[in-house]
Amino acid sequence: MTRPSQDPHLSEHCLETTQVYRGHMLDVRRDRIGLPDGGTAHREYIVHPGAVMIVPILDDGRLVLERQFRYPLGRVMIEFPAGKLDAGEPGRRCAERELLEETGYRAREWAYAGVLHNAIAYSTEGIEIWFARGLSAGASQLDEGEFLEVFSASAEELDGWIRDGKVTDAKTMIALLWLQRWRAGDWALEWSNEPAGACAPA
Amino acid sequence: MTRPSQDPHLSEHCLETTQVYRGHMLDVRRDRIGLPDGGTAHREYIVHPGAVMIVPILDDGRLVLERQFRYPLGRVMIEFPAGKLDAGEPGRRCAERELLEETGYRAREWAYAGVLHNAIAYSTEGIEIWFARGLSAGASQLDEGEFLEVFSASAEELDGWIRDGKVTDAKTMIALLWLQRWRAGDWALEWSNEPAGACAPA
Repeated sequence: MTRPSQDPHLSEHCLETTQVYRGHMLDVRRDRIGLPDGGTAHREYIVHPGAVMIVPILDDGRLVLERQFRYPLGRVMIEFPAGKLDAGEPGRRCAERELLEETGYRAREWAYAGVLHNAIAYSTEGIEIWFARGLSAGASQLDEGEFLEVFSASAEELDGWIRDGKVTDAKTMIALLWLQRWRAGDWALEWSNEPAGACAPA
Repeated sequence: MTRPSQDPHLSEHCLETTQVYRGHMLDVRRDRIGLPDGGTAHREYIVHPGAVMIVPILDDGRLVLERQFRYPLGRVMIEFPAGKLDAGEPGRRCAERELLEETGYRAREWAYAGVLHNAIAYSTEGIEIWFARGLSAGASQLDEGEFLEVFSASAEELDGWIRDGKVTDAKTMIALLWLQRWRAGDWALEWSNEPAGACAPA
């Protein structure tokens, strides 16, 4: 259903690619492309290494969340822990690393809940969704220049905050969807306590 | 909870802003910023005008969706209709315009379900969520160089596609969350049949 070769009436193809900006974080491209009707156009987008989000569930069912200032929006956002993949890093290993660095928690069990694409008009970014449970607390190891608060909340509190517009971070909203559908018994999670690397998604 | 002045230990502030790329679609900035501990750093991000997503509900309860090739991901994505705000355009008016242009549908009733922020690390984008019902079909009016397919599906089909990873577009996943919480009677939508402009969100 999603292979371009099956959709010639919708598909676009690259004619020429140009890196128009390369910063410390952002890699911006402007491609000349061929359209389905034979015309040409340009597409501008970010090349992103991909990221992970962790949904950490404490033994009493509460969730580990963060408050972090997000500069583009100019305010503190409530969100699940997340971070970018290092080059070649498997998602599960990145999830373990980011959970430990940002919150100090280690998890005994992990479950992969798929990927989300958060800015399909202008970014290649995909965010892998990882659930974590069997948590044990330790000291966080924040990167230099990284400031955030860790706290816990119930799924019901998070539900109310999203309903009321206090939480508007897309990945965090999607985590609630997954959590509710999983708890209802309708969407399945396969938990693994194997070491990272042995169970990275295909 | 989210005002920077309340969180001096988390907040960053702008020292200097530079537009490092201005394309047809992307406006890229690199700011030098002050950190909570008095240090400095840089932040790179996209300045985005904002967007709307429409969740169109047919009289039989089925949903109007689109299949569209998304160049950054190189494949056709299933998603709800959406589009960028024109300068100064109220969200509701943009939602009416995009629904008509992309699908040909007009709606008798609209309800605002808040905003989502889809790329908080590197974009100012917010996507307003608008539900539409009382739909009447007409001819779509696609922009030049815009190619997409319109189809309908049940909420149950969409639920299965997200569970199975066939639908990974973040805004569309969040639309399902809202739809399910609204249908369960837990999250409220206020429907309006007033003309656009009279009911834009504050």
